[in-house]
Amino acid sequence: MNQRVIVPLPKAFRLLNHGPTVLVSSAHAGRRNVMAAAWSMPLDFDPPKVAVVIDKSTLTRELVEASGEFVLSVPSRQQAALTLAVGTQSGREIDKFSIVGAGGTAASLVGAPLIDGCLAWLECRVIAEPHIQQNYDLFLAEVVAAWADPAVFSNGRWHFPDEQRRSIHYQAGGSFFATGDTFEV
Amino acid sequence: MNQRVIVPLPKAFRLLNHGPTVLVSSAHAGRRNVMAAAWSMPLDFDPPKVAVVIDKSTLTRELVEASGEFVLSVPSRQQAALTLAVGTQSGREIDKFSIVGAGGTAASLVGAPLIDGCLAWLECRVIAEPHIQQNYDLFLAEVVAAWADPAVFSNGRWHFPDEQRRSIHYQAGGSFFATGDTFEV
Repeated sequence: MNQRVIVPLPKAFRLLNHGPTVLVSSAHAGRRNVMAAAWSMPLDFDPPKVAVVIDKSTLTRELVEASGEFVLSVPSRQQAALTLAVGTQSGREIDKFSIVGAGGTAASLVGAPLIDGCLAWLECRVIAEPHIQQNYDLFLAEVVAAWADPAVFSNGRWHFPDEQRRSIHYQAGGSFFATGDTFEV
Repeated sequence: MNQRVIVPLPKAFRLLNHGPTVLVSSAHAGRRNVMAAAWSMPLDFDPPKVAVVIDKSTLTRELVEASGEFVLSVPSRQQAALTLAVGTQSGREIDKFSIVGAGGTAASLVGAPLIDGCLAWLECRVIAEPHIQQNYDLFLAEVVAAWADPAVFSNGRWHFPDEQRRSIHYQAGGSFFATGDTFEV
C-alpha cells in the first residue's frame, strides 16, 4: 500500500468535493466486495457526511445494508481500468478483490477494507434512512475516519504530482476525464 | 446566449456525471436568485433525477421550496470568477444576476432561468422529501428538460474544444480544478 496519513474530519469533504469516481468497498460476515460509483458527493462538513447511490441489484448493496458501513476509496488514473472492471462486473460472480490486486488494507473503524494504491479513503457509517434507500438507492453516511496519500493531498488540498496520480471522473462507455489544471480566481 | 440544443432525457445524467460545480437558479413570485453548488450529482438515468445540497440560510432555499423548481447550469472555466462570486455573496443583499451579466434565458418548463454563457442546463422539479430537505439540506429533483451547447456536448458526450470552455470543479478558497484530459480504458 502507498503512504497514508490521517485527514482531519472537518477537511474530509475536500476529498470528494471535486466529484471524482470512487470505489465502494464493503464487508459483512466473511463476505466482501468492491464496486465503482460515479454518483457520490459530500453532504456536510463537520461531522462530515457523504451521499452515494448504490443500486439494489448489487452485492455491495446487500453488504452495506447488512453491515451499516462502507469505505469510499478515490482511485487514480493508473487505476482507471481496474475501476471500470469493478464497475462492470458483479461480486456475485467473481471475487473482485482479484481485480484490485489484493484484499485491501484494514480500515481503522469499519470492517470494509481500504483499497490499495488509491489516493484517499473515507471510512463511512450509514445513517439509516430506509425510505430514500428503498426509493432512490441513495445512502447517506457519516465519515468517521479519513486518510490520504500525502504525495497527492495535504493541508486540506489536493496537489497532483503527475499525470497518472490524479483522480478520475467517469463519463460513459469506458471514457473518463482526468482531473485537470488547478487554477485560482 | 451561446448556442443551445436539447439533450435527450436518458442522456441528461451525463451532464453532471463527472462532478462539475453548478449554478442553481431559482424564481418565485417575482423574486429570483442564483448561487453556486459544489455538491450535486445524478441520482437516476431515466427519468433522470438529480440530488443537490441547498443550505437553509440561502435565498435559493426559500425560492426552491416555494416554487418546487430550479435550474442547474454548468459554468465554464471562463465563468469561474462569476461562479465564486455567486457562491460567496447572498441574494438577500444584492441582485446576483448583476454578477452573471444578465437575467438569463427563459427555461422551457420551469420558472427559473438558464444562466447565459454556461455549457449545459438542466430544468428540474423538486421531488418533495421534506424529511431529508429539513435534516440534510438535500433536495432530490426530476430533470424535466436538458440543454447543452453543441460546441462542448453532443451525442451524449462532452468534447471540450479548448482550455476555457471546460467544466470546473471547486476545491476551496477560490481554487478550482478544470476538467482535464479525456482518456479511454
